[in-house]
Amino acid sequence: MKRGSHRGMDAPSSPIRKLVPHADGARERGTHVYHLNIGQPDIETPLVMRQALSNYADEVIAYGPSGGDAPFRSYLMEYYSALGADLRPHDLLVTTGGSEAVSFAFAACLDPGDEILIPDPMYANYLGYASMLGNKVIPIPTRVEEGYHLPESLDGLVTPRTKAVLLCNPANPTGIVYTEDEVARILDLVQRHDLFLIADEVYREFVYDGPTTRSVLTWPEVADRTVVVDSLSKRFSLCGARIGCVVSRNESVMASAMKFAQARLSPPALAQVVAAQAVNVPSEYFDGVRTEYRRRRDVVYESLSGIDGVLVHRPEGAFYQMARLPVSDSEDFVRFMLDEFQLDGATTMVAPGGGFYAADGVGRDEVRIAYVLNENDLRRAMAVLAAGLTAYRQNRV
Amino acid sequence: MKRGSHRGMDAPSSPIRKLVPHADGARERGTHVYHLNIGQPDIETPLVMRQALSNYADEVIAYGPSGGDAPFRSYLMEYYSALGADLRPHDLLVTTGGSEAVSFAFAACLDPGDEILIPDPMYANYLGYASMLGNKVIPIPTRVEEGYHLPESLDGLVTPRTKAVLLCNPANPTGIVYTEDEVARILDLVQRHDLFLIADEVYREFVYDGPTTRSVLTWPEVADRTVVVDSLSKRFSLCGARIGCVVSRNESVMASAMKFAQARLSPPALAQVVAAQAVNVPSEYFDGVRTEYRRRRDVVYESLSGIDGVLVHRPEGAFYQMARLPVSDSEDFVRFMLDEFQLDGATTMVAPGGGFYAADGVGRDEVRIAYVLNENDLRRAMAVLAAGLTAYRQNRV
Repeated sequence: MKRGSHRGMDAPSSPIRKLVPHADGARERGTHVYHLNIGQPDIETPLVMRQALSNYADEVIAYGPSGGDAPFRSYLMEYYSALGADLRPHDLLVTTGGSEAVSFAFAACLDPGDEILIPDPMYANYLGYASMLGNKVIPIPTRVEEGYHLPESLDGLVTPRTKAVLLCNPANPTGIVYTEDEVARILDLVQRHDLFLIADEVYREFVYDGPTTRSVLTWPEVADRTVVVDSLSKRFSLCGARIGCVVSRNESVMASAMKFAQARLSPPALAQVVAAQAVNVPSEYFDGVRTEYRRRRDVVYESLSGIDGVLVHRPEGAFYQMARLPVSDSEDFVRFMLDEFQLDGATTMVAPGGGFYAADGVGRDEVRIAYVLNENDLRRAMAVLAAGLTAYRQNRV
Repeated sequence: MKRGSHRGMDAPSSPIRKLVPHADGARERGTHVYHLNIGQPDIETPLVMRQALSNYADEVIAYGPSGGDAPFRSYLMEYYSALGADLRPHDLLVTTGGSEAVSFAFAACLDPGDEILIPDPMYANYLGYASMLGNKVIPIPTRVEEGYHLPESLDGLVTPRTKAVLLCNPANPTGIVYTEDEVARILDLVQRHDLFLIADEVYREFVYDGPTTRSVLTWPEVADRTVVVDSLSKRFSLCGARIGCVVSRNESVMASAMKFAQARLSPPALAQVVAAQAVNVPSEYFDGVRTEYRRRRDVVYESLSGIDGVLVHRPEGAFYQMARLPVSDSEDFVRFMLDEFQLDGATTMVAPGGGFYAADGVGRDEVRIAYVLNENDLRRAMAVLAAGLTAYRQNRV
């Protein structure tokens, strides 16, 4: 067989999606699978958004502007203004999900061979895009023992090829919300080394123990070097629509992003029709969502804290919990849960932790849990997970 | 201002989209603009597709499989089977338009720094993706005088960095349909030099003077080195939905494409709901579309042939016509048409030809015309264009 590119062959498989066939197998045997492996919220997409589809009246589903349709752009401009960031029209481009925003940000800030610093563990798809675009991810090591907080100094990781730092805040997969002091240290670092700061703020509203984090768009001293990648997927349960945006006041970056946006013509029209209805979603909607996720966070954290040999840090935001388990190979444990284990007809699927680390061989005893089921299902799923862990250790360890 | 990446700064602007502000200006002055500058068909999206939106009943617009939803995939498998290509499930990935299919094909076949041969002039967005992915497009020169047919030998263009040849057939922007002999020469070339063949077949059904072109998927001798990029945008007037696919029997390429697909999670859900209805579009639908476009092709070709100093080759497929005009700078002519000219309250916008050429300085006296208006509007638009050309030559040449 003829071989394709090295970047393709070397690209990582999604740690979340590659075990899907095992879950399919469990379902085929009649076992119910609690899916805590993927950040797909069970919260209903707001009705007013779904209703927009019934009212769709265009006779031709036509290309729109590469930077996004006017009604949805107008909502976004208001949304950022309310966060304290008044944007010019060319500071913002609508993208096909946060994913495309990440790819535009990387390609507009980094050339092939350039390096980007990212706290490790990280959202695994940064690694996929870095492979595709020929960039190198340099992990900033963090540990559960230190609550995933950043090392005091990062200067030793900077090389002549370093072009950017990426901060996901609140963070997937750790659930950490960085302190103002930590953010200030990152801002200092990017200024001293003349780097871009790519900020993934898709979980902006998902903060449980304090005020919502301040967007990096509101820090004037880094305005020229900041690129925000954003998405409506989690905020409004719109994962499948594929709609987000990239925001920066740096005109060089946005001019490049616009050229990449023109190459793909326009973001999905139907997703924009739906997402533009965000303007009609009452602000209480998100208060309810946050309360619900806070309860779930507590269920997951408390369940795990009660299991012998499990090490966890209490998440402050997003909807993920990393956990170190008393196993040597969490991928093997996940396969065991799907292939061999069930409790009263059910099993629980979580994501192996190794795939969230850029560093080789780290995280093999960890898993990521997405708390995206209602409280009752979640309690049940955690009980099944705990029983499975006991069974696994009796069998394998 | 801090500068972004070289690949971003060096990326080409869309030759089609960058003059949009001039068209906006004309409209603001009350001038009607006939848009022949962009391949956005005016044909209605089939009703059965649009009706699928009213019937959408999911409470959560959720992520789907990275390779596409089952109903739409099932339609695609049948569609290719009818073309003579029976595919295995992992031979096909649903993409966010043909655009994403191009990016996956490039990234899975070429590493940064690798070269790809493409007949020049070409669909301009290949250049945008090559910039983004760090690849180099090597133009295969073709000329209107030879009906845009390929040079006898291409071996002189192949270097150690050449990894692929791209053939768009029927071709945007020239409207050429390659002869079986030409295709056979390309197949011979890719075999002798061990290259991939990336085939853009999005205009497959748009052939006006003979049988539909045979898909490269049906040539067994290149099965292992062929990657087809496809889209429903033109076929079903679904440009804004952003839905297409990438198809290959090469398992290395498709494994890489799947990893890139996982990085962006899933193709747009709503577009797939609409596109899956293709199975319910009667086959006569496309016969009507083809008859309509054949008439339009004739209107455009005959109008241009009647203008003194214009050189054209009669398009055999797609819905574009390249034309060499008696001007030295067609971009200046397009701006003139939008900024200064009107006839009975209307003007015509076409796309400057230079942006469709990878070779420097070529095509500056050419334009591309997309025949995407009904016959009456098209006749009127061509008359306005002819009058504008006369006025421009009196003023400027």
